[in-house]
Amino acid sequence: MVDAVLFEFLHTEMVAELWAHEPDPDPGSGVSDGLPGQKISLLVLEGMGFRVGRALGERLPREMLPFREELDVLKFLCKDLWVAVFQKQMDSLRTNHQGTYVLQDNSFPLLLRMASGLQYLEEAPKFLAFTCGLLRGTLSTLGIKSLVTASVAALPACKFQVVIQRS
Amino acid sequence: MVDAVLFEFLHTEMVAELWAHEPDPDPGSGVSDGLPGQKISLLVLEGMGFRVGRALGERLPREMLPFREELDVLKFLCKDLWVAVFQKQMDSLRTNHQGTYVLQDNSFPLLLRMASGLQYLEEAPKFLAFTCGLLRGTLSTLGIKSLVTASVAALPACKFQVVIQRS
Repeated sequence: MVDAVLFEFLHTEMVAELWAHEPDPDPGSGVSDGLPGQKISLLVLEGMGFRVGRALGERLPREMLPFREELDVLKFLCKDLWVAVFQKQMDSLRTNHQGTYVLQDNSFPLLLRMASGLQYLEEAPKFLAFTCGLLRGTLSTLGIKSLVTASVAALPACKFQVVIQRS
Repeated sequence: MVDAVLFEFLHTEMVAELWAHEPDPDPGSGVSDGLPGQKISLLVLEGMGFRVGRALGERLPREMLPFREELDVLKFLCKDLWVAVFQKQMDSLRTNHQGTYVLQDNSFPLLLRMASGLQYLEEAPKFLAFTCGLLRGTLSTLGIKSLVTASVAALPACKFQVVIQRS
């Protein structure tokens, strides 16, 4: 009844809280290490997502580990992880077969509540950072080191790009 | 598979994040308004819980609103809300029939991972503040103004005291 949206509400509060309290310096100024407040908040959200993803990965049934192929892991993220967190599957998964994957969600739940006007596009990154971390963290538990970024062209659709880091 | 623990992991990260960045002044000092850092973090968590609880309350099926009696609302929290959030029911509910209710959870999930030694008791409040807010927020949506506090005598059991504020 309410559990499916609990994560979504909590995520909204986290974003609001971080943007309410993180430094938001005047243009041109910055905090001590030169990062503007918004960038710090994005890093914090991504880090939280990473640790949650890593912890979720550790709860996977044993028989799912190890996956035979990298592509199987990515399919798992698109299907099982997405359903567990967002109650829907990712809409498409593409790869260049060289370690880059593009996961597209045509109606990403954490962006759904935003108005679809172009003027809100710049607000989108803060609603994507946690999930980028979540993907990176889950992959990490599964033994895959990656870089995950997200982009939005038209709300509420978004793409997550996963680039595998070969060691 | 993983969705049942998603809230728990996210909550853990929120607590850790707030305690990592909130001011934690030397003994005797304090931030500008006189509140020590930990107290501010507790208020922030409680506020987040309140807003999440209020939002969850708004998702309740229409036929559940309005409840006939105050006690029905409290029973709903102990049963349906607790199952939705924690996958278990509250263990007991007591009232003095004068607007004070004591909800006891003998094995509160957000305290379960803490070691059970007495030395960890002082850490308990930060794992209870969000849930106090969650209860207060859900009650607020249901038209009941309340004060909610929590206490722990022996981990991982805890009691939530709800005092109804008559207007």
